[in-house]
Amino acid sequence: MHTYKGRFITLEGGEGVGKSTLAANLKLELEKKGQNVVLTREPGGSIGGETIRTLVLNPPHSDGSWSPLTQTLLFFAARRDHLEHVIIPALTRGDWVICDRFTDSTRAYQAVAGGVDQDTITQFDTMVVGENQPDLTLILDMALEDAAKRRVLRNGPIDAFESLPQSFHEKVRHAFIQISQVHPERCYLVDASLEATAVTQKALEIVSNRLKLS
Amino acid sequence: MHTYKGRFITLEGGEGVGKSTLAANLKLELEKKGQNVVLTREPGGSIGGETIRTLVLNPPHSDGSWSPLTQTLLFFAARRDHLEHVIIPALTRGDWVICDRFTDSTRAYQAVAGGVDQDTITQFDTMVVGENQPDLTLILDMALEDAAKRRVLRNGPIDAFESLPQSFHEKVRHAFIQISQVHPERCYLVDASLEATAVTQKALEIVSNRLKLS
Repeated sequence: MHTYKGRFITLEGGEGVGKSTLAANLKLELEKKGQNVVLTREPGGSIGGETIRTLVLNPPHSDGSWSPLTQTLLFFAARRDHLEHVIIPALTRGDWVICDRFTDSTRAYQAVAGGVDQDTITQFDTMVVGENQPDLTLILDMALEDAAKRRVLRNGPIDAFESLPQSFHEKVRHAFIQISQVHPERCYLVDASLEATAVTQKALEIVSNRLKLS
Repeated sequence: MHTYKGRFITLEGGEGVGKSTLAANLKLELEKKGQNVVLTREPGGSIGGETIRTLVLNPPHSDGSWSPLTQTLLFFAARRDHLEHVIIPALTRGDWVICDRFTDSTRAYQAVAGGVDQDTITQFDTMVVGENQPDLTLILDMALEDAAKRRVLRNGPIDAFESLPQSFHEKVRHAFIQISQVHPERCYLVDASLEATAVTQKALEIVSNRLKLS
């Protein structure tokens, strides 16, 4: 566990489950309670991290992909830059950090769905993240049909991950559920099929209970 | 040790010691002996690796640098891509591979000179390179004054590493000497202050003895 003054919250889950909406709402609620909140995301979140994110999402290969292991290395490089330039400085100042995706996304996407060994991910996490683990992780969970509807409503550009088949997203969902069971001291599974305000309320309740929010 | 039909040779050493000259000469000599030889380099060597190399050499940060650990992760990402797309396919075909820089450069530059823990580099190497270790590594060694003169003669653009102070290059030189002592079964220290033809001859002699070149 880290020893910074600030608190570190990560939001996890598949595509279209409402992570960025919750991140924005949770930031507002925590600010109402007097906290300085830094909202950030992975991959990216720092200048170096964003540059690596662009590279991950736009592979230069003619077959259009990085291998799962290379992708994992790039994600951890982006993560290290993000930690050094954004997350650790914020936590050191005493700010709260809400991060949209972190190592659990690498576990779910690269390890379970992409076939990278779980021990490898854990070793990378130990070497790259080390003591700087999240204090709390909210895993947003909902049925795939509902998430797909939201993605259509959002109507944004489709990226490399979103265009993968249904079976991939199914594995990812189950990977996240499994992660919440393996790390019960840190992770809370949140029913993301509720209205956004109800999800925010539920999240705030968990944050208050877990992190002794004054 | 890998089980591919081809042989994998890496060339290592500081800036300006004559690695690329030796690589080109050694390729010619091995071709004369009937081998197919793939000449490649790190960081880079594959389309994905080259893209990462460009990113490593051109950090987007306002202070102009990646941290040593982030740099290490990027180098290993490039290395994995390079292995998958160039080195392993060539060795599988039965070709010989001569690679200008490989993991020993990461050990020397990031670990010893940049302060990244040696165990961390070794763990990355185990996870990313695994069994695909070089059969033979030629470490070119020469006094820093001579290497500096060669760099001036070469008259090319100065990159981020070359512009570092003399003390850095001194540490790197000693790191490479140390690596040759830690891995005597794989590494040979070659006196790079000799004429290029004499260095090539010496290298060819080591290759013939070590790899049973017919």
